[in-house]
Amino acid sequence: MNFLDEALKEAEKAAAIGEVPVGAVLVKDGLVIARAFNVREKIESPISHAEIHALIAGSQALGSWRLIDCDLYVTLEPCPMCLGAMVQARIRKCIYGAQDPKGGALSLGYRLNEDTRLNHRFPIEYVPHERSSSILSEFFRARRRASASEPGSS
Amino acid sequence: MNFLDEALKEAEKAAAIGEVPVGAVLVKDGLVIARAFNVREKIESPISHAEIHALIAGSQALGSWRLIDCDLYVTLEPCPMCLGAMVQARIRKCIYGAQDPKGGALSLGYRLNEDTRLNHRFPIEYVPHERSSSILSEFFRARRRASASEPGSS
Repeated sequence: MNFLDEALKEAEKAAAIGEVPVGAVLVKDGLVIARAFNVREKIESPISHAEIHALIAGSQALGSWRLIDCDLYVTLEPCPMCLGAMVQARIRKCIYGAQDPKGGALSLGYRLNEDTRLNHRFPIEYVPHERSSSILSEFFRARRRASASEPGSS
Repeated sequence: MNFLDEALKEAEKAAAIGEVPVGAVLVKDGLVIARAFNVREKIESPISHAEIHALIAGSQALGSWRLIDCDLYVTLEPCPMCLGAMVQARIRKCIYGAQDPKGGALSLGYRLNEDTRLNHRFPIEYVPHERSSSILSEFFRARRRASASEPGSS
C-alpha cells in the first residue's frame, strides 16, 4: 500500500469542502491507525492542519500521547507548527509528497526534527508524489479564477 | 489586571492534576476571552500545551481562526510548535513569564514570529513573573523526590 495515496484520499476530502487540500495518515506496524485532513476554515481553528488532527487521532487510537514507532505520511511539507508537533509526539518518521517553498519548515530552514537540543529526533523524507502537488495547484487556480470573476474585480 | 497572574491561575490547575504547570490566557480589548492549561498527560494528546488550547478556545469564542488583535499571555516561553501555532493564528502579541532555555523557541533560536517569509509577524516579550517560574521548579523538585523514593531506586 502506498501511504501517500492514502493521505491523498484525505486531501481530496478537504478539496471537496473547499479547504486547502492537504491530507495525512498515521501508520503503525504497516496499518493506518489515523486519517485526517485540513479543516481550518470548516471548524475555524488555527491549528487544524491535517498533521495535527492525524496526531490527535493517533494518540486517541493508541491511548498515549507518545506515538512510538508511528510514521506520518502527509501530502504537503509540514509547516513549523506541525513539525514541532511531530517532535512533541515522538513519531518515528515523516514522509511528505510535495514541497512547500513558501511555508514548509524544511524549505525555510527550521530543521526541528534534527535539533539535538530537543528531546526527540526523527528523519523526514520528501518522496515526490505528483498528485499531492497537482491537487494544490488546481485548488489555488480555481480559487483565483473564482475571485477574478467576482463582482467588483477588474 | 495582570494577565500573567491570570495565566498563573491556569498553571495552578495543571499542577493540581499532576501536569507540568503551564497556563495561558488570551486577551482581546482588555478582556480574557479564553483560558487554558497544559493537559498533555490527562487527555493523552501530544499537542495539548496550554497555548494550543487557549488558541482553540479563543477561536471558538470569536468564531474565527484569525485571532486579530488578540494577545496571548503564557507562564512559560512557548516551544516551537506553540510559537508556530501563534503565527498560524495571527495573534497580535505574546507575553511570557518564565524562560525555557532547554525547549523554548526563542531560547533555541527559532524566531518564527519575526520571519518575514511567513505570512504573519508579531512581537513576543519576556516579562519576568517570579511565580510562573517557581511553580515549575517546585513541580519538578517534587517529582524527582517522588521518583527517588520509589521502590527499586537507589
